[in-house]
Amino acid sequence: MLDAMKVGILTGGGDCPGLNAVIRAAVKTGIARHGFEMLGIEDAFHGLVDLGYQSPHGNRWLTEMDVRGIQTRGGTILGTSNRGDPFHYVVKSESGKEIETDISDRVLENMHRIGLDAIISIGGDGSMRIAQRFFEKGMPIVGVPKTIDNDLGATDQTFGFDTAVCIATEAIDRLSDTAASHDRVMLVEVMGRDAGWIALHAGLAGGADAILIPEIPYRIDAIAKMIAQRSAAKQKYSIIVVSEGAKPLGGDRSIGETRAGAMPRLMGAGSRVAEGLRELVSADIRVTVLGHIQRGGPPSSFDRNLATRYGRAAADLVATKQFGRMVALRDGQIVTLPIADAIAKPKLVDPKSEMVETARALGTFFGDEP
Amino acid sequence: MLDAMKVGILTGGGDCPGLNAVIRAAVKTGIARHGFEMLGIEDAFHGLVDLGYQSPHGNRWLTEMDVRGIQTRGGTILGTSNRGDPFHYVVKSESGKEIETDISDRVLENMHRIGLDAIISIGGDGSMRIAQRFFEKGMPIVGVPKTIDNDLGATDQTFGFDTAVCIATEAIDRLSDTAASHDRVMLVEVMGRDAGWIALHAGLAGGADAILIPEIPYRIDAIAKMIAQRSAAKQKYSIIVVSEGAKPLGGDRSIGETRAGAMPRLMGAGSRVAEGLRELVSADIRVTVLGHIQRGGPPSSFDRNLATRYGRAAADLVATKQFGRMVALRDGQIVTLPIADAIAKPKLVDPKSEMVETARALGTFFGDEP
Amino acid sequence: MLDAMKVGILTGGGDCPGLNAVIRAAVKTGIARHGFEMLGIEDAFHGLVDLGYQSPHGNRWLTEMDVRGIQTRGGTILGTSNRGDPFHYVVKSESGKEIETDISDRVLENMHRIGLDAIISIGGDGSMRIAQRFFEKGMPIVGVPKTIDNDLGATDQTFGFDTAVCIATEAIDRLSDTAASHDRVMLVEVMGRDAGWIALHAGLAGGADAILIPEIPYRIDAIAKMIAQRSAAKQKYSIIVVSEGAKPLGGDRSIGETRAGAMPRLMGAGSRVAEGLRELVSADIRVTVLGHIQRGGPPSSFDRNLATRYGRAAADLVATKQFGRMVALRDGQIVTLPIADAIAKPKLVDPKSEMVETARALGTFFGDEP
Amino acid sequence: MLDAMKVGILTGGGDCPGLNAVIRAAVKTGIARHGFEMLGIEDAFHGLVDLGYQSPHGNRWLTEMDVRGIQTRGGTILGTSNRGDPFHYVVKSESGKEIETDISDRVLENMHRIGLDAIISIGGDGSMRIAQRFFEKGMPIVGVPKTIDNDLGATDQTFGFDTAVCIATEAIDRLSDTAASHDRVMLVEVMGRDAGWIALHAGLAGGADAILIPEIPYRIDAIAKMIAQRSAAKQKYSIIVVSEGAKPLGGDRSIGETRAGAMPRLMGAGSRVAEGLRELVSADIRVTVLGHIQRGGPPSSFDRNLATRYGRAAADLVATKQFGRMVALRDGQIVTLPIADAIAKPKLVDPKSEMVETARALGTFFGDEP
Repeated sequence: MLDAMKVGILTGGGDCPGLNAVIRAAVKTGIARHGFEMLGIEDAFHGLVDLGYQSPHGNRWLTEMDVRGIQTRGGTILGTSNRGDPFHYVVKSESGKEIETDISDRVLENMHRIGLDAIISIGGDGSMRIAQRFFEKGMPIVGVPKTIDNDLGATDQTFGFDTAVCIATEAIDRLSDTAASHDRVMLVEVMGRDAGWIALHAGLAGGADAILIPEIPYRIDAIAKMIAQRSAAKQKYSIIVVSEGAKPLGGDRSIGETRAGAMPRLMGAGSRVAEGLRELVSADIRVTVLGHIQRGGPPSSFDRNLATRYGRAAADLVATKQFGRMVALRDGQIVTLPIADAIAKPKLVDPKSEMVETARALGTFFGDEP
Repeated sequence: MLDAMKVGILTGGGDCPGLNAVIRAAVKTGIARHGFEMLGIEDAFHGLVDLGYQSPHGNRWLTEMDVRGIQTRGGTILGTSNRGDPFHYVVKSESGKEIETDISDRVLENMHRIGLDAIISIGGDGSMRIAQRFFEKGMPIVGVPKTIDNDLGATDQTFGFDTAVCIATEAIDRLSDTAASHDRVMLVEVMGRDAGWIALHAGLAGGADAILIPEIPYRIDAIAKMIAQRSAAKQKYSIIVVSEGAKPLGGDRSIGETRAGAMPRLMGAGSRVAEGLRELVSADIRVTVLGHIQRGGPPSSFDRNLATRYGRAAADLVATKQFGRMVALRDGQIVTLPIADAIAKPKLVDPKSEMVETARALGTFFGDEP
Repeated sequence: MLDAMKVGILTGGGDCPGLNAVIRAAVKTGIARHGFEMLGIEDAFHGLVDLGYQSPHGNRWLTEMDVRGIQTRGGTILGTSNRGDPFHYVVKSESGKEIETDISDRVLENMHRIGLDAIISIGGDGSMRIAQRFFEKGMPIVGVPKTIDNDLGATDQTFGFDTAVCIATEAIDRLSDTAASHDRVMLVEVMGRDAGWIALHAGLAGGADAILIPEIPYRIDAIAKMIAQRSAAKQKYSIIVVSEGAKPLGGDRSIGETRAGAMPRLMGAGSRVAEGLRELVSADIRVTVLGHIQRGGPPSSFDRNLATRYGRAAADLVATKQFGRMVALRDGQIVTLPIADAIAKPKLVDPKSEMVETARALGTFFGDEP
Repeated sequence: MLDAMKVGILTGGGDCPGLNAVIRAAVKTGIARHGFEMLGIEDAFHGLVDLGYQSPHGNRWLTEMDVRGIQTRGGTILGTSNRGDPFHYVVKSESGKEIETDISDRVLENMHRIGLDAIISIGGDGSMRIAQRFFEKGMPIVGVPKTIDNDLGATDQTFGFDTAVCIATEAIDRLSDTAASHDRVMLVEVMGRDAGWIALHAGLAGGADAILIPEIPYRIDAIAKMIAQRSAAKQKYSIIVVSEGAKPLGGDRSIGETRAGAMPRLMGAGSRVAEGLRELVSADIRVTVLGHIQRGGPPSSFDRNLATRYGRAAADLVATKQFGRMVALRDGQIVTLPIADAIAKPKLVDPKSEMVETARALGTFFGDEP
């Protein structure tokens, strides 16, 4: 009889509602269907860099009982890390300086030392690049795509996105009550550095008056004009949803070069729009930055199910030894494709898409018209 | 200059989260984009049967202000009705007997009397049949599909379904706490008369131990055996999600002909399974019927957006005079198709589908194995 | 140096949101403040009846890590039981017959065998009676009151109640959407066998048209009249909240002796009212029984905090050896009192109270006026 | 027969969940019980300053239908204003300069012009002061206290507070998922300029590791030490809840005079703590400012009911002509007291209170120990 395959599983990058559902599905399928032994690797690749490393998450062999019910919880039981690319690992030199170094060989070595036969890596674009490099170095690895921003070209939807949109929509609903009571302009900054998906979906669901996304640079004077027109029409409050990556037309200089210099370095997109508007309109303007609350909490049913399907499919990929591949969703079906094909195909909001057109038809302003 | 088109909009069948979002989108698009005058017709076709008819909803010309923010609310501001097919209208005769009669001509007449140029009908399978018959009689009508059960073949997803799944999942989460604390078998009956979509999606998301759906007839003895096996493995509680249309293999007689006769006529699927199990296992078994709470409350972001896109597309269908057609979702895109093509193509859960297989891989039991 | 005190903690009766917060607070306070060793006893007193007994909950020594974050979760990590009064313990005789027997001595013996110096018992009226009898037999025991129905005279409020009211209110909100859309009479049956607190609080918060509670027997004809009057005033839908213990004036016979006999034995209060109304009004009447979903899920902030304060106070009672006492809330303060004083003082809704009067002032009907 | 009393109702200050429940209860009780005619006055006193003034809220006579179901919604249907004290009204002079002027006589005049016999003013400390001054000038006015911060000495609890605590607790729950996954220090800034009630209640419910409130000045080095100790004990993440009014011991200078000068003027308490910690510990520190989302959305059941009881009691005060008085909650009972007595008695968190002691017993740090 053959020995059981030993399979490591890890989560990399920012946490995202649904990570635990992937872990649970992969572990349950792995153990019950394929007879794997499943090792939870802690804090992304950190758990393979230094086998003595110990965070509260901890490298540990997982049982079905360990993953019971975890699909209902946010975060990841394995821990994660935004840093720790083994090909560009940052260590402190004796002088205290940070030095980048390639420790990928050590990771491979440690993997063999533990006796792992395969790795399931759940992560975003960065994690998939690392996975691909490890695959090219001979690591038997499969991928599960993850980004709360939904901006991966390889898959129609990523888990976590639906939950983030639900949270952002609920926040917009709440802020609308206050905005309406006080005749205010409320700016809500949501996640989305490169792509405006969360802003578009939550803004449409919440009935925002304007939605500012990276894909459609805004003109601050056009937004000011909209507010003035609404006010003249006795619509004294406005809700404006702003992606964290929203940019003014022509870049930040459009707000005024001098002022920009004086502004705090880390001012977010929402605050930047507010600053710009305050110079142009007399309305009472407030900014709310949703930030990290968009990431946590119980995943939505949709995200739990998508993540569960991914997790099971990833375990099957390992069982059939289809390494170097990742799972994805296409037209409602779970498919697999080479990780190499998936990298660097971001999925952005098409300004001409039916969804944007629908929002416009309902009177939503994207900050781009004169 | 041409007169503005006058367009009536109505909602038929059971209420469903997202109806108000369709109404809002159609009204806003109709008025602002196409210059329509939009009439809200009350209580499905009742508002066109008797022009003097008045419910609290009321036939009334709608403004953009009337629909502001309604996408956040459950129900329908127009009222709806499960009865009232104008081709089989039920009236009380003088003797008090109920008589079915065809009053479709009167509806057409009333439509012309009000001066309506087109109708947007939002409804389920029944409503689409009525729409088709009216279309064949010359009524300029377009359709928007609606079923909380998600069992329409014409469209990949219907609005309301995602919200219902979220509510059912949350209920399963709650019941799991109690089941685990008391070592109980908890049966949760969810909507789904012909199709098990809600049970499958909520059951998978909630981590149910068994899911019973109409498409996979169950064997009560197999379920009892599963409970006994779990109990022997120290898993003393089980969550079983039951579609209201779940059926035992071989029909209801499998529970025992005598007993069945003694059972109340209206016993639901959940209670029927409980009765059967109580004869076979000693576990503490409880039934919760979610019922109407699955229908109300704020629609999920997904449902608001799908409904909004449908509503806008329906208004565009009217503007381009593509009558006899309905909107639908296919592979993420809004498409249109003849209402006639859409009727009577139910969409059922395929027992061999990847989603069912995923649930099985995770250990979920469908009541069908020995 | 003295040995650490060994303290057992158990939860009895129906589960209730907040139990885990009590456990966490007692364990953390016990360990960190008083140096206790804390034993989690499984399934109420079952864990002390048979030391070999093992449910998934399990007798186990608890660490602070074991209780981290559990205040956010429903149910009880210790398991509970509605049965298992050691003074009337039910065992199966060899012939299979159930026999009641007093095994309280065995429980005391087992307690000493484990080396426990004290017990913290969290439970309802029944559990407090058992605690008092054990205290009289010499057991060093303290009590934490628990009832989701809020009907304990000894304390102003019990944890779990606020959460149950929130869940019931949300359900009423949802059902109102559907009722309004369909012009229906919606009956919502909520918990409350002896006291109408949940119905009163949720009904008032949800704006129910009628609230039926055990303390105010209803007249079915009066309710029918109310529905007719509302209908005549174009208010075609009504929401009626019904305590599970609501009773018609004069007892069940008022519905008609013959019919009652034909009705299923276990028909709930909601269904009974519906049956009665269907004979008197033509409205479309639906019943929703909330049942167990009122018990589970994350406790409200209020319940977490009340339970936390109780748990800490109970640990302090043990530390100061004030056995035979329980904690309670009086005018916002945590107090302690003899368990003996607390038993059998139910707290019922006063039909003349300001809260009932407020509901009446807002037009809520209690089913009692002609 | 006497003419009906005409009663105006207005809401002042920041919006707060429960305002609509007060309005509904006062309007329903006023109309149905006392035969009042009820005028909704727009945007606090603005609606009485200029009778031609018109916001979307609008002065209007309210019917019972106008207030149906509004207790489920956040905000206020009457609009509100943080500005507009008629005794210090700000107007723009012709030169564009803002001038403060006393227009209280005009308000009284306008009140008589409309024919109002009484005013119900719902508002915070500021609004109560204005009410008292108007009462002294002869206005028949009664008060309903409102502050989301719960810091009014006159009443045991204000509506809106429970909802705000629930929202903040849910946010802490979410952030805990992310903090635990990333081994981060998460700072959550909640409302509470002068009093730490929201931070204390939400922090205790969410199991925060530290709670910083205005009543207990913090030492940044002590917090840094706590983080280091937790890290050493393998608890690599911490949740710190910060009132917006939290202050370092000795005032802001403790962070370092030079740095403070360089910091943006409007840096909130959360960011200030983060800045301080970043100099002392190497942990990954993130700040989330909940801001306005704490104010909106459906009020909790508790807040709806407290607000409803206040609204009814306020209408009764008017009916019995007990002007110059306000309603309050004392030991669970609705009472009334002179507005004059209620002003300027803030209710702060007592650092020695049982609730703070409970939090400390559970290991929560208040930033004050060495």
